[in-house]
Amino acid sequence: MLPGDYSSSLFQLPLLATMAEAPEANAALVLAGVMLSLVVIYLASKVGGEICARINLPTVLGELVGGVIIGVSALHLLIFPGSGIEASASQIMQILQGTTTLDPAALQVTFNAQSEVISTLSELGVVILLFEIGLESDLKALIQVGIQAAVVAVVGVTVPFVLGTAGLMLLFQVPAIPAIFAGAALTATSIGITAKVLAELQRLSSREGQIIIGAAVLDDVLGIIVLAVVGGLVKTGEVQVTNIVYLVISAAAFLIGGILLGRLVSPALVGLIDRMKTRGSLLLVSLIMAFVLSYVAVAIQLEAILGAFVAGLILAETSKQHELGEQIKPIADMLVPVFFVVVGARTDVSVLNPFNPANQEGLIIATFLVLVAIVGKVVTGLAVFGLPGINRWAIGVGMIPRGEVGLVFAAYGATTGALNPALQAAVIVMVIVTTFIAPPLLRIAFGPDGAAGPEVLVAESSAN
Amino acid sequence: MLPGDYSSSLFQLPLLATMAEAPEANAALVLAGVMLSLVVIYLASKVGGEICARINLPTVLGELVGGVIIGVSALHLLIFPGSGIEASASQIMQILQGTTTLDPAALQVTFNAQSEVISTLSELGVVILLFEIGLESDLKALIQVGIQAAVVAVVGVTVPFVLGTAGLMLLFQVPAIPAIFAGAALTATSIGITAKVLAELQRLSSREGQIIIGAAVLDDVLGIIVLAVVGGLVKTGEVQVTNIVYLVISAAAFLIGGILLGRLVSPALVGLIDRMKTRGSLLLVSLIMAFVLSYVAVAIQLEAILGAFVAGLILAETSKQHELGEQIKPIADMLVPVFFVVVGARTDVSVLNPFNPANQEGLIIATFLVLVAIVGKVVTGLAVFGLPGINRWAIGVGMIPRGEVGLVFAAYGATTGALNPALQAAVIVMVIVTTFIAPPLLRIAFGPDGAAGPEVLVAESSAN
Repeated sequence: MLPGDYSSSLFQLPLLATMAEAPEANAALVLAGVMLSLVVIYLASKVGGEICARINLPTVLGELVGGVIIGVSALHLLIFPGSGIEASASQIMQILQGTTTLDPAALQVTFNAQSEVISTLSELGVVILLFEIGLESDLKALIQVGIQAAVVAVVGVTVPFVLGTAGLMLLFQVPAIPAIFAGAALTATSIGITAKVLAELQRLSSREGQIIIGAAVLDDVLGIIVLAVVGGLVKTGEVQVTNIVYLVISAAAFLIGGILLGRLVSPALVGLIDRMKTRGSLLLVSLIMAFVLSYVAVAIQLEAILGAFVAGLILAETSKQHELGEQIKPIADMLVPVFFVVVGARTDVSVLNPFNPANQEGLIIATFLVLVAIVGKVVTGLAVFGLPGINRWAIGVGMIPRGEVGLVFAAYGATTGALNPALQAAVIVMVIVTTFIAPPLLRIAFGPDGAAGPEVLVAESSAN
Repeated sequence: MLPGDYSSSLFQLPLLATMAEAPEANAALVLAGVMLSLVVIYLASKVGGEICARINLPTVLGELVGGVIIGVSALHLLIFPGSGIEASASQIMQILQGTTTLDPAALQVTFNAQSEVISTLSELGVVILLFEIGLESDLKALIQVGIQAAVVAVVGVTVPFVLGTAGLMLLFQVPAIPAIFAGAALTATSIGITAKVLAELQRLSSREGQIIIGAAVLDDVLGIIVLAVVGGLVKTGEVQVTNIVYLVISAAAFLIGGILLGRLVSPALVGLIDRMKTRGSLLLVSLIMAFVLSYVAVAIQLEAILGAFVAGLILAETSKQHELGEQIKPIADMLVPVFFVVVGARTDVSVLNPFNPANQEGLIIATFLVLVAIVGKVVTGLAVFGLPGINRWAIGVGMIPRGEVGLVFAAYGATTGALNPALQAAVIVMVIVTTFIAPPLLRIAFGPDGAAGPEVLVAESSAN
């Protein structure tokens, strides 16, 4: 009769916990662990962000570094279950065990549950970020630079892939499959990091900003296609043409169809919202739209963030753009830092230690990959045509960060056995370096003006 | 080297999933499940809320009923793992399996992970709700009605407990321990439901509203103490005096100490926020405070929501009250409906079916418990003294809903074996009835004026 899981209700569970026999996660303690993790994440993001704002670096870099410090590389406050990581290694779980009634037998399930929640919150964070970016974007401007963005994306995928694969095979005698795999990892662009920095610099709506965002979105789609191609190569030794055709068609249909359909239904939606009488109607109807499109994106094997971006683009064209933007802001402030801190926390920077002999082979290859990664994306700026006076350097630099997308390639390579440890480490180093240097480089690329966001009150002339 | 769980990153995982060997939850699909659940929750909350707003009932009632409809009682869209509930019974998981690459072997882990996330989001929802209620409360007014609130709380715990326990023993020949347990379940007050209705009626800051909120907070503390007493009785047959003394002292120390300490540090905190340069500083510093106090509350075996309420009270006294209130509003709009819909979804209303012979014994006892539950709380209004012209009826009615707190008693009773199925069903029926009738009763109690919230545009005269 009782839907059994009432024992996972919020209330009075520390008392109930003492009676539990099976080691089941106690909801009150999972919540406590999640809240403690959020406190640590927010502290790391604010301390890192404030320091970076003061030394004139993008705050997102501070959030990433803050994440590295509390994560698997250093303090072990925020770590996630996985290869060889036990619940007892998590300092959050240690605190939880020391201060609450947490049963040692329930340590692992509580750790897993808490990690699952924080992980999903961080992913909701990047979904909300892309929704916000879409909401602040101008679809017409984006379409105007569409061809340039497409060229930038294609060049930014082709050049690093060809240079990287050929270089690894010719210079380092890496076999074809691993070389192709590492080359593929070079093609990614982290739209999250790039978009956040552009927003901080107040350059999202500039022509350069729109080209970068457009190219990064297309790059996400291309990345999925590249991964499908490479994955097929690794598994079956041949390229699965039908799969690629399916991905290309579904991606195009989703981006174009989503926007057209959205434009059709959004007036009715706005009318509906205006007739609703309860609190939060605009926000919830918009979130329903964002989540539905994100879900459809996942269902057709694209990324959730693409759906959220399209939903933002559609709603940006309605009369509610400004009001919704105001309401999304606190939600983004709450969830987006979770994403960047978690990306930092998950990054094991110990592969960067040159004094560890096990790292040395990887670091040599990594140096090559980093060079290709930077050059291969910076040249994309040169491919922009027909826009005199455009900041080509900024566009190229904006495409540099690989972020979480590059790490997925590395993880995928490790799972399939395509990458040996040295090559895998090299890919991770490449991802770390490009991710962490891109924000300051982008600020420099836009010059002193670009850095003059309203929140940066320190004198600009001495910096850069 | 790679913090293994990158495979649970957001990106391109549908492709990775096809390669997974061990049935591990795929993060992209967990996210998809969570987003789909949120869509269903938001639809249920808005449809239910809008219907209730139009027929002049509190929207929270619509959210609860919307939850019942999508939950375990009807559509099985939003259900949670537990006694006899399989992942395959969840319609959300069925949709996920039908539309994505979800591996059948990973169905159960994905269901568990998604449920854990939704469950925790709903608990964060009530934490944010109590934070917001605290932020909208006036500490001075609350202290002014402190004695009245304490009297209301004590009367509201004593009368239902004595009437319920004695009635069950004398009228229904229930043995002492189960009778005491069922009596204890009658003592709870759901602060969440009461506070939400008061906010909707714009009566939070009225004297009646402040007394109800103050009494409901104290009732939460008293409820924890009652549960400790009863739990000790069931387990050891005796009352654990030291445990009770500990709970009373720690609760008093927490409420008073938290407020005093908060008042001391809040000016420094506001000064710090003013000097911060990054986006979202006010919000994140406030959330850090709310989560830290919530964590401390859990650590000393109180409830997380008490900590959030105290944090809100403290910040309400700062110059940032209004600005923070504006920022918390969208976050509450996003998370609070999750709480109410989940409470509804978890409630199995099949125990209310009088045509099921198995329910009949429980329903007869339930009728008695419902009467005691209502009378026992309504009389608390009579106990208010020294405030001529106060709406005693409204105060009494405001204490009626048992909500999730009452269900914890029922679940606890089932786990310990103290309640037999009929008595457990009766307690659940009592909780359902008091929870669902309290919002409309409260609106009636405050009269036509009270119902005239700014969002209610329909004519009031014909209603009530």
